[in-house]
Amino acid sequence: MEMAPERFGRGPERLEAFSDGVFAIAITLLVLDIRLPDLTQMSTADQIGRALVALWPSYVGYFVSFITIGNAWINHHNLFRFLGSVSHGVLISNLLLLLAIGFIPFPTALLARTLGGPGEQIGVVVYAATFFANALAFNLLWVQVKRVLKPGSPPAAVAAINRSYRLGPPVSLGALVISFAFPVAGLAIITGLMILYLLPRSTGA
Amino acid sequence: MEMAPERFGRGPERLEAFSDGVFAIAITLLVLDIRLPDLTQMSTADQIGRALVALWPSYVGYFVSFITIGNAWINHHNLFRFLGSVSHGVLISNLLLLLAIGFIPFPTALLARTLGGPGEQIGVVVYAATFFANALAFNLLWVQVKRVLKPGSPPAAVAAINRSYRLGPPVSLGALVISFAFPVAGLAIITGLMILYLLPRSTGA
Amino acid sequence: MEMAPERFGRGPERLEAFSDGVFAIAITLLVLDIRLPDLTQMSTADQIGRALVALWPSYVGYFVSFITIGNAWINHHNLFRFLGSVSHGVLISNLLLLLAIGFIPFPTALLARTLGGPGEQIGVVVYAATFFANALAFNLLWVQVKRVLKPGSPPAAVAAINRSYRLGPPVSLGALVISFAFPVAGLAIITGLMILYLLPRSTGA
Amino acid sequence: MEMAPERFGRGPERLEAFSDGVFAIAITLLVLDIRLPDLTQMSTADQIGRALVALWPSYVGYFVSFITIGNAWINHHNLFRFLGSVSHGVLISNLLLLLAIGFIPFPTALLARTLGGPGEQIGVVVYAATFFANALAFNLLWVQVKRVLKPGSPPAAVAAINRSYRLGPPVSLGALVISFAFPVAGLAIITGLMILYLLPRSTGA
Repeated sequence: MEMAPERFGRGPERLEAFSDGVFAIAITLLVLDIRLPDLTQMSTADQIGRALVALWPSYVGYFVSFITIGNAWINHHNLFRFLGSVSHGVLISNLLLLLAIGFIPFPTALLARTLGGPGEQIGVVVYAATFFANALAFNLLWVQVKRVLKPGSPPAAVAAINRSYRLGPPVSLGALVISFAFPVAGLAIITGLMILYLLPRSTGA
Repeated sequence: MEMAPERFGRGPERLEAFSDGVFAIAITLLVLDIRLPDLTQMSTADQIGRALVALWPSYVGYFVSFITIGNAWINHHNLFRFLGSVSHGVLISNLLLLLAIGFIPFPTALLARTLGGPGEQIGVVVYAATFFANALAFNLLWVQVKRVLKPGSPPAAVAAINRSYRLGPPVSLGALVISFAFPVAGLAIITGLMILYLLPRSTGA
Repeated sequence: MEMAPERFGRGPERLEAFSDGVFAIAITLLVLDIRLPDLTQMSTADQIGRALVALWPSYVGYFVSFITIGNAWINHHNLFRFLGSVSHGVLISNLLLLLAIGFIPFPTALLARTLGGPGEQIGVVVYAATFFANALAFNLLWVQVKRVLKPGSPPAAVAAINRSYRLGPPVSLGALVISFAFPVAGLAIITGLMILYLLPRSTGA
Repeated sequence: MEMAPERFGRGPERLEAFSDGVFAIAITLLVLDIRLPDLTQMSTADQIGRALVALWPSYVGYFVSFITIGNAWINHHNLFRFLGSVSHGVLISNLLLLLAIGFIPFPTALLARTLGGPGEQIGVVVYAATFFANALAFNLLWVQVKRVLKPGSPPAAVAAINRSYRLGPPVSLGALVISFAFPVAGLAIITGLMILYLLPRSTGA
């Protein structure tokens, strides 16, 4: 029966659905971090207004985390177009990537709360380290996807992903090292890398 | 190979699945905001009953948020029927829309807690501003969808969406401006707009 | 073009995906309610053991909520087999059902915490009222689904769903009324109804 | 009409989507357990650094829970390849499995917090008991899936799943019993079992 491998092979649908679920939860989670102040203690509009303004690190955290994880989802979506079949290596390396993605809300919240204060260096270092871990996980997944590449995948698109992914680990490791001494410079490098990944051509589309 | 664009193009399935996940989480999140009072401190049914009644702003918040986000989901569902292919512009503008959707639980909870108190004006202004941001994001997404419109999309349906979406930004901006001086009037305008969007004909169906 | 209605009609896939997301979140939410006691304050295994045992209402809440929502999901799944197309009425009544489903974790947690204490009557009444609202919402959805029934739906299955759904509102309203005077009797009726819905034949399968 | 059973039968798609949702939420939930310390009370980088290091049980909990639930998802994914149709038995036993999966974040967090302290034995016993419950639930589901096996399922793959699943309940029950006296030994057995399930050949692939 030559149909057997097709019918009993693991299709990408469930892997995508499960991954989409984890991405969707991770991206929405930081709204929970924007906690309403206890309004029953406040008697004037002025007090309430100031309490809401004081929540700004939570707003920044929600925004940065949304862009970071949304960006990663777009990359994941792009990668899976070239997946020919679901190998065990793809399953395991995708799980490692999701582990790194699901963690993002924590360092993002930490970064938003430490910027400009005594913990700034710690905040940027932890954030850069998470970014580095994500870059490694994406490269590991891409290595596994290339082993089971869909036949006929356009070489130009594969080469474009190769080029843009190759940048991730060394640049984010550089940002990590630099941020021990110059946190703001480290953060600038990561921001630049993120903008690069948001550009359409980096996806091989 | 003329099949290549079909096979390697990004289909709408994952974009829909990811969006549905974010909508589903955002719509369910406000139940977490209905926190049980500490019942171990209460010795009579009367105390427990009063503590449950005192939670009414949380019930209202859950209800309003559910209707608002459910309404947005119906619109999103409707829009994507006419999506021909997933461009980079659609990905990015959809991400911006989800950013605005995922934020809704916060201004809704704030509105529910400030109505009738000293922070009423602030609550309505923040809620109207979120509504305005959502209207802008929906229009931006619609502009991107129209660039990759599915061939054969019924012109009458497209025109109906054009008409109903065109209303959103100016009316909600008007509500925002008015709510600085007359919060209740601003809220009434937004409620009217929401009812309009819930009507079947606004969707071009 | 006779293909147009097919291609631009709203298929049930996204409605199911969105509903599945809300069900999945609602069913998992009560695990968050099982909060670890502060173990840093405890110096003996005995103290820790007793603190974990004291959490039993949370365990019961998680279990009851899981069975209730899981049961509702099975019914929803069953109903949608007979859906021919997605009308505006189906969208709106499905949203109302999800509103009732997403609320379940709250009355379940309340029930688990009030059973056997002074708030028992309140806990059962609120739980029975939620059950009644769910029964009404399921019937409303079924009315809308029957208007767009898939051609060729087996009449025997439709009749079986008619029969089992017709029971829900009057029986749960009866349980609600009775629970004002006899909470335990009201709870017994609801439990019986739930077991009935868990039986295979009630689904028309 | 011979097409009726096909068209009105319950396909696995929604069961998979709902299950994927529960898995995705359970796997992401422990990030919520990594709570940022109150940084406003801290004036030096040193204090902030130490507060972050003190969170290590939360990091361990997130990691262990992610691997455990990710592993279970891979097994679930693998099992469903051989599902021919969705029987009532499959629906109910899948619900019981999800009940056990959704509970995992709690014993994992407990384990991470009790290791090395006075509650270590309790932590390992509860964790082993959850593992035993999961092994039972997986076997129950497999029994139900085998009753509606997809025609043409490769006997070698079915036999491989039989072999690896048969191990689960007795070995984890053994680990449970042993962990009453020797917690560390019980934990070692469970870790070994988990690594075995992570190996590609145990899945019958």
